[in-house]
Formats: sequence, C-alpha cells, structure tokens
Amino acid sequence: MPAYKAPLRDMRFLLNEIADPARLQALPGCEEVTPDLIDPVLEEAAKLCEEVLLPLNRSGDEEGCTIENGVVRTPKGFPEAYRAFCEGGWTALACHPEDGGQGLPHTLSMLVEEMICSANLSFGMYPGLSHGAYAAIRAHGSPELRETYLPRLASGEWSGTMCLTEPQCGTDLGLIRTKAVPSDDGSFRITGSKIFISAGEHDLAENIIHLVLAKLPDAPSGTRGISLFLVPKFLPAEDGRPGVRNGAACTSIEHKMGIKASATCAMSFDEAKGWLVGQPHRGLAAMFTMMNAARLGVGIQGLGVAEVSYQNAVAYAKDRIQGRALNGAKHPEKAADPIIVHPDVRRMLLTMKANIEGCRALSVLTALEHDVSLRHPDAAVRQAADDFVSLMTPVIKAMFTDMGFESAVTGMQVLGGHGYIREWGMEQFVRDARIAQIYEGTNGIQALDLVGRKMPSHAGRLLRRFFHPVLAYIEEKGEDERMAEFVLPLSKAFGRLQQATAEVARRGMGDPFEAGAAATEYLRLFGLTALAYVWARMAEVALDKADEDPTGFYRAKLGTARFFMERLLPQTGALTSAIMAGGKSLREFEEAAF
Amino acid sequence: MPAYKAPLRDMRFLLNEIADPARLQALPGCEEVTPDLIDPVLEEAAKLCEEVLLPLNRSGDEEGCTIENGVVRTPKGFPEAYRAFCEGGWTALACHPEDGGQGLPHTLSMLVEEMICSANLSFGMYPGLSHGAYAAIRAHGSPELRETYLPRLASGEWSGTMCLTEPQCGTDLGLIRTKAVPSDDGSFRITGSKIFISAGEHDLAENIIHLVLAKLPDAPSGTRGISLFLVPKFLPAEDGRPGVRNGAACTSIEHKMGIKASATCAMSFDEAKGWLVGQPHRGLAAMFTMMNAARLGVGIQGLGVAEVSYQNAVAYAKDRIQGRALNGAKHPEKAADPIIVHPDVRRMLLTMKANIEGCRALSVLTALEHDVSLRHPDAAVRQAADDFVSLMTPVIKAMFTDMGFESAVTGMQVLGGHGYIREWGMEQFVRDARIAQIYEGTNGIQALDLVGRKMPSHAGRLLRRFFHPVLAYIEEKGEDERMAEFVLPLSKAFGRLQQATAEVARRGMGDPFEAGAAATEYLRLFGLTALAYVWARMAEVALDKADEDPTGFYRAKLGTARFFMERLLPQTGALTSAIMAGGKSLREFEEAAF
Repeated sequence: MPAYKAPLRDMRFLLNEIADPARLQALPGCEEVTPDLIDPVLEEAAKLCEEVLLPLNRSGDEEGCTIENGVVRTPKGFPEAYRAFCEGGWTALACHPEDGGQGLPHTLSMLVEEMICSANLSFGMYPGLSHGAYAAIRAHGSPELRETYLPRLASGEWSGTMCLTEPQCGTDLGLIRTKAVPSDDGSFRITGSKIFISAGEHDLAENIIHLVLAKLPDAPSGTRGISLFLVPKFLPAEDGRPGVRNGAACTSIEHKMGIKASATCAMSFDEAKGWLVGQPHRGLAAMFTMMNAARLGVGIQGLGVAEVSYQNAVAYAKDRIQGRALNGAKHPEKAADPIIVHPDVRRMLLTMKANIEGCRALSVLTALEHDVSLRHPDAAVRQAADDFVSLMTPVIKAMFTDMGFESAVTGMQVLGGHGYIREWGMEQFVRDARIAQIYEGTNGIQALDLVGRKMPSHAGRLLRRFFHPVLAYIEEKGEDERMAEFVLPLSKAFGRLQQATAEVARRGMGDPFEAGAAATEYLRLFGLTALAYVWARMAEVALDKADEDPTGFYRAKLGTARFFMERLLPQTGALTSAIMAGGKSLREFEEAAF
Repeated sequence: MPAYKAPLRDMRFLLNEIADPARLQALPGCEEVTPDLIDPVLEEAAKLCEEVLLPLNRSGDEEGCTIENGVVRTPKGFPEAYRAFCEGGWTALACHPEDGGQGLPHTLSMLVEEMICSANLSFGMYPGLSHGAYAAIRAHGSPELRETYLPRLASGEWSGTMCLTEPQCGTDLGLIRTKAVPSDDGSFRITGSKIFISAGEHDLAENIIHLVLAKLPDAPSGTRGISLFLVPKFLPAEDGRPGVRNGAACTSIEHKMGIKASATCAMSFDEAKGWLVGQPHRGLAAMFTMMNAARLGVGIQGLGVAEVSYQNAVAYAKDRIQGRALNGAKHPEKAADPIIVHPDVRRMLLTMKANIEGCRALSVLTALEHDVSLRHPDAAVRQAADDFVSLMTPVIKAMFTDMGFESAVTGMQVLGGHGYIREWGMEQFVRDARIAQIYEGTNGIQALDLVGRKMPSHAGRLLRRFFHPVLAYIEEKGEDERMAEFVLPLSKAFGRLQQATAEVARRGMGDPFEAGAAATEYLRLFGLTALAYVWARMAEVALDKADEDPTGFYRAKLGTARFFMERLLPQTGALTSAIMAGGKSLREFEEAAF
C-alpha cells in the first residue's frame, strides 16, 4: 500500500523563503501567523493525513459508496475519520471567527488541502464541497441564512454541495430546467433533477446543505436567468437542529473511474423548500464566487495526487533492483542495481519533482495574493491581488490537474507491471486524478476562460499583474552571472509568451474562434512560463545556501531547477509554434469528415 | 455503450494507395493477395469484431476473470466468442499452410489485429499470446514439437503463453530462478514461480502451451544462461489429445487497472515436464523472435484502442449540444450547438485522428516490410526489410502505445463528466490502453533498445533503411510547390532528427548514460518524423484526388495532414532541445535528494 509523508520541509521553504511572510503577517487577522503558529498546524495536519486519511484511501477505493432506499453509505472508516477531522477543527480552519472558524489564511489552508488530497482525494471532497457552500452563503446569503448555516458548516456538523449540472447541461448552464416557485413565506419551492452532485448524500454529517441553481418563473432565458437557492436536506427546527425532511433526495450514485469513496449523486428536488442566496437571476455570479475558489482547490487536487505518486515512485525506484547502471555496476555486491541509477527512471522522477515543486511554489504565491485580495486594507492593493488570482485561477486549475494526471501516470510507469496491479495503489492515483481535469469546468473551458475573459479583461490589466513582475525580475537578475542558467531560459520562454499573447489577442479580437483555437496551448505556455519564474526564484534562494547545507535540500532545488530549464521548458517553443500556426486547420475541417 | 465500425475505407486506402500492392503480391505465397481476397477477409473480420467481440467488452470489464481451486473462468460469453473466433479461422490467419494455417501476410493480419484490439483488447490477448507461442515453436522447436503443437495452436484448440517474468525480475531476465533439470527421456523437469502470465490459465481452450524461460543446472549466470522450454498444461496423449495433467498450475490472478477480462496469472511450475525449444542457454534469443513480433502487436493495441475511443468521441461531439459556436450560432433553431463546433473540441479530435491515421499508415508499411523480410527470395532484400522492421519495432511499440493511451484520455475528455462514468465506456479504454505502455518491455526499455541497440547496429545500417528513403522523398518532392506545405515541415523535422542522431551517437559512444538520458525524447522525435513522412505521402496521393472525391475522404486526408504538420509536428523542436541539453542534470542529481 502506498505511503505518504507530508512535504513539510518544502512547504516551510516556500512560506518562509519564497513567499513574503511579512506581507502575510501585515494583513488584518494574520498578525499571529508566524512559524510558531504555522508549524504545529502543518504538523498536526500531516499527522492526520498520514495516520487517519491515508489508510482509508485504498479500502475506500475498493469498497466505494453504496445506496439503498436513498440512503448513501460511505466506505468503512469514513464516518469515524470525518468525526476526527471535525473535532480537530480542520473544517473550520479557514472559516471566519464569527462563525466559529479559526480565520487562518488561505496561504496556510491551501497547504493543508494539498496534504488531504495526497492522502485521500475522495475523503477531501466532502469538506471541500462544504467549504464552497460556506463561502457562497457567507458572501451572498441573508443574515438569517448566515446565522443558521455558517457555524454548522464551519464545525462540519453539516456539509454542503453545489448543484449545477443537469442531464442536458454541464458547461452550458443557460440550459438548466430546475424551477423555483416563490412561496408566501418568502421561501421557494424547488423542483428539478441534478446530476454529478459530489457529496449530494452521505452518512458523514447530520444535515446536507445544497446550493442549487434554478430558474424563477419570470427568469430571462440563458445564463442571465439563473438564481441560486439554499436547500437543506433537513429543514432546521426551532432549536436549530435538523428537523423535517425536505423534498431533496438522492436517486442514484454514479459508478466512476475513480474517487469511488466520494458519493457522486443524482439528486431529485421535488418541491423542496429553499431560500434565495443573493439577487434573483444573479445566481451564476454568486456561484462563481465559490467556483473560483473551487477551481483553485481542484488544481491543488492535482498537486496532491502528484506528490503522493512521486513519493511512492521514488521509494520503488530505490528499492527495486533490476539491471545494471549503464556505466558499470553501482552495487556490484548485489545481484543488480536499484533502478534509480537508470537515466530514464531519473528523467521520470525529475519530471514529476520539477512540476510538483514548481506548482507548489506557484500555489503558495497565489494563495498569498488570495489572502491579500480579501484582507488588505487598501482597495487598490486588494484589486491588484485579486487580478493576479483571477488570472492564475484557470492556469492553476488546468495546468496543475494535467500535471497531476501526468505525474500519476508517470509514477505508475516507474513501477512497471506492478504499477498496473491494484494492490500497489499507483493506478488508483491515475484514476482519481483523472476527474480533476474534467470537473469545475473542463480544462478546455479553463483555457477559454484565460484567453477569452482574463486576457482581454480591462485592456490587459490582469495579464500585467503577472507580466510586470516577471519582466522586472528578468531585468533585475539579468546581470547576475550565477543566475544566467535560470534567467536566460526564463527570458526566452517569457519572450515566447509575449509574442503568443500579442498574436492571440490580435487575432482573437477579430475572430473569437482564433482565440479558442490557441487556448489550450496558450494556457500551457503561460503555465510553463510561470513555473520557470518560480523555479528561477527558488534557484536564486538556493544558490546562496547550497554550499552550507548538510541536508542537500538546496542542492536538490538547484538540480531540479536545472532539469526544469533544460528538459521541460523547451516545450514552450513547440507550443508557440502551434499557437502561431493559427486556427485555419481546425476551422476548415468539414464536420462530416471527422 | 461504445460503438465501433472498422475503418475499412482507410485500411483499403493504405493497402492499395500507400503500400505497394505489387511488392506484396510478388512475394511467394502472396500471389493471390489481391483486393478480391483482402476485401472479404477485412469485411468478415469487421463483422466479427463489431458484432461478437465489441458487445462483450464492457461486460467483460465489469465481470472480470475469477479463480476457484486453480480453475480460471473468463467472463460470460467469452468461451462462445472464442469458439466462433476459431471456427472462423481467425487464429490460423497468418499461420503456415503446413500447420493448417491460411498463410496470409502480416500486412493483412495486422489490420485484423487492429480491429480486434478496438473491439475487445482483453479478448485479443488470448489468441495474441498463442500467436507468439506458435511463432517461437515454429522458428526454434524440434520437428516433433512442431508436429504435435503447431496445428493445434493454429486451429485455436490449444492456446499459448510466454512465461518470462518472476517476482524478482521483469526487465532484467538474467535474474530468473526457475530451474530445469534434464530427465532420462530427453525431457526436463521445470520448477519455479512466474508472475504476470497473460492467458496463463482460462476456460477457452482445451490445452495451454507455456513457453517458459528457465535455467539448466550448468547454466552460466546472467542472460546467457537462460533456456526456453515448452511446458503443456496437459501432456499430449498417444492420440494427440490432452492427456495427463502436468505440474503447471495457476495459483492466483491479478487484480488490475484494466484488461480485466484477460486472466493475468501467477503460475507455479512444480517438476512440470517440458521440452527444450532451441539451443540450451540460448532461450532469450529464441524468446526475442517472438518478443519482436509481440512488440509490434502491442503497438497495434495502442492503435486499436485509440481508434475506438476516437469514434465514440466524434459521435458524442456531434450529438451533445452545449454552448454556441464562438462566431455565432451554427444551429440557431436548437437550444445550443453541438460541441463539435468548438475549436478546442476539434483540436482534440484532430489530434487523435492525425495520430491514429499516421500510425496506421506506418503500421501497414512496416507490416509489408515484415512480410518481405520473411518471404522475399533475395536474401539482401530480406535483410534490408528486416533491418527496417527491427528499427521500427521499438518506435511502433512505444509511440503507438503512448499515442493510444493519450488518445483514450483525450477521447474521454471530449465527453466531459460522462467520460468519467463507467457506463459510457470511455474510461475503460484509458484503463485498458495503459498496460500497453508497460508490458513487452516498458516504453523506456523500447527507447533504450532504439538508441542502445538499433542505432549503433552495423554502423548505422538500420537507421539508413529509414533515413535514405525519407531523404530521397524530400529531395524528389522538394521541387513540387503543391507539396511544399507538407515537405517543408517534414524536412525540418528530419533535419532535427539527423542532428539529434549525430549528437546522441557521438555522446553515447563515449558514455552510454548519455544515450540513455536522451532515449525517450529521441524515440518520440524519431516517431513523429516517421509520421510526418507517411502524412506527406498520404497528402501527396490525396492532392490528386481531393477535387473529384464525392465522399470527402481525400479532402479529410489533406486537412488532417495540414493539422499534423502545423500543430503536432512542432513538438520535434522541443524534443530536440531536450536531447541536446544532455544528461548532466540527470546524472548529477543525488540519489538521496529524490
């Protein structure tokens, strides 16, 4: 069975040496977020993930969820683990103190999320969805709704869902058919069918709070006519405890490729009582508040699975003896050398490592900006940080989940035939990671979001939040000879990104099809350039410390940075060529000829 | 449930317009292999695959194989399908007429194999393994062994296996421990444990013929001390029917990510009676005779799965309505447009199509050379053809299976959330295709075979079998303006391949680690250049016929060729950069730092 140790050393490095700790601690409510506070939180989270969640990952996959008469049961051990999770305060980590939360910043909670996703992706879905519901109600709910629901979502006693998809519509929410009819008491009656509802029904929490997209009777057609409703499984009684059962039921659960311990439900709403969240017909905007946070969270799922797959691939590669080093036996006393001596095995492991640590660095920098965007006293600073997060959200969602899947596939490859056997657990990571490329907006949709919304937004203002610091960094470090091996490749990749950006913007202005035709390659080009930027920054810190480092941590950073620059970053050239070729070959292909 | 229609139109195009039919028909025994013979064979194969094998693919995956007291049962319907398969003569298709086979060329049987892999990869494993055993016994067995076993393997009454892997060794067969002790009657007693034995035990055939690698008492250590033995499940009786049970038993079957209807067995040999195949201590060479054919066959598995995934992704993309075309509604009368209007969906489908049709063309050209290598009267011609096949074998095995997996993943992505649900069948293709990158030598091993054996072999003679025709083609078509859009990119890719070849050869000569460090990228660069070559040749044929083609087949070829050249082939640039960077970053990374 796979093992997992939370990468606390790397996390501390990012928090203390790459992100700006002073910037975080200057934020209202974050004054205490120093290493003294952070370290025990990370260590406790690691312990929970390693000792409680990880051991349930394989068994959860084998057992899956079951449904009988509308009652969904999670796999053995899940209810107990969920209880321990709530009692440890982990559901409340990033919730507001007003709601009983600990009010800790995203910079910290995102690292905890990564650990949860490494240990047990399916389990992480349940509190993850609650967090989205919490955020939407907190941002858009009435004071009554907030008072009734937020503390219980924060404590984990109740859990949440996001009910968007219907059989006839996923990406195109303008097509939804679920209806909401006003009642006299100010509530609504919700009727319709939803599918693919994660955590729609289960036995972990005593109540489930559905956030449901539906249409009011006078709704305009399309996405501008969608409203958001809060629909609890049990209507809260006078005392605030779960009361009468509402008309929301799970009719079936899906049989999926992976995340089998996460209940994916078809839900039927039959005149269920609900309350409006936010303005009528403005539900999609309210939903997007939480979708954006959720998309960052899904990106972290990719990162988490990549990390656990990497760790187990390394362990196997050091243990499995097979063949001899190409330049002569490394361990002549043994029957063969461990396979980690082989260059192609090293290539696989370093590819995973370079992508994982690059993505983790980018996630920490983005999470910090996320906290700044929410907490900084100066509106202009908040806006600048929000721009950065908005820009990075599709990149993190799509690139991290692609990287997560690719890493899981590579980790499996390191194990050869054993990777294909269920008992070893590596193939589960592949199956689990696969969903993250699809849900919360497929990665194709993320790419469209980047080129179609984020790029043109405010005449390129969002783009500049990333382009300007990178450019300044290249200029600042351009003179530093020690940094040349990192800054030159970064500079080359960044030049390609600028060229591609200008071209996509120019063409897309006249013809949106052209922007769409470049979108996926553009997102990857953007993401790789962002990774080059964080790798250069990590290498810069490591250069000063590598010589006096008994643990080898900084030397490893330098070696990984070199590998990234030499072997992975050249990909930006191929992507740029594909982008510059334009969309003609896609457009002119006759539909019948597919 | 997925549908499948064999791509007969494309297959006929390749046989008649890309391969040289006269070259095939000039081979001894192939005089009759004209369209009159080929068409009905392909059509009958298509019917069998579409109507008998495909309907068992999903149920086979759900049900899997079971074992009880050493008896393995395949899923419902498999025994009946196998009977129909044998009665149709499909096991005997490429077997020698002396053994009751039909003696048809590989050029034809490889296309049939592709269809089988599209329809039901698990099912195809059973006759596929028999074919390997047949080839090894025919090439290396004594006259008695050939007489006893070959006709029954050809008819499919008996099936075969390849027993190589043991718990402590997969890639490194020098480590095997299974022992063979001579008996007085000229037979041997085989004792040992084997794992990952496909079709090791099942209920399809009345006897199973294991080809087992084992060591004789006087064996030198390492791979030069391995011998090959034939070990039947039942010892043939006087009348040639299965007689006494031999000491070969299945102890368990593996639980795998995919190909669940293929029984993957742990086998225990306990003083089992066997006969030597080929020379003592030369078993690995004998095994490689069939391994090479098997590697081509595994490449075809990738192609087959890619094709069926593509077909179902296209069907979904034409059917599913969601969102509007970016340049304005294509079907304003409907609630939304089919998703095939979206550029990113088209990009995904064209990527699959370009890779699939390119690989199929390369497979047909290679299969023809395979037939030439076996049948041509002139030894020099046979050698030249054999060189080409030897060179292409690792490329086809690795690139086709990588492409097969990537295509299955992409096909699944086109379906969005539905792709992740088991009922739709798309995720099964991903799980099934995954194994092909691992078995018969991982794709990393294929890459090492290419740079470490095939490239330096005979001072580059094998390489020249591919480089010379490509160079001649570029020179010949360089003047043709209509061909410029295909020949220029081909020429650029080929230049990169030449540059990378020179560099890898130079560095690898002094330091094998350097060759290994470049191997995976080099194989892909080689493969993409080979695809560019066949795409240019297909485009050349299509240019003349596109205007007068009511079906659009040739226009589609041109459009796909353009897409390949513009959007996929630029990858060669990134690969070349990674190769030229060398192995330093891989070599210097400290083992403890992973």
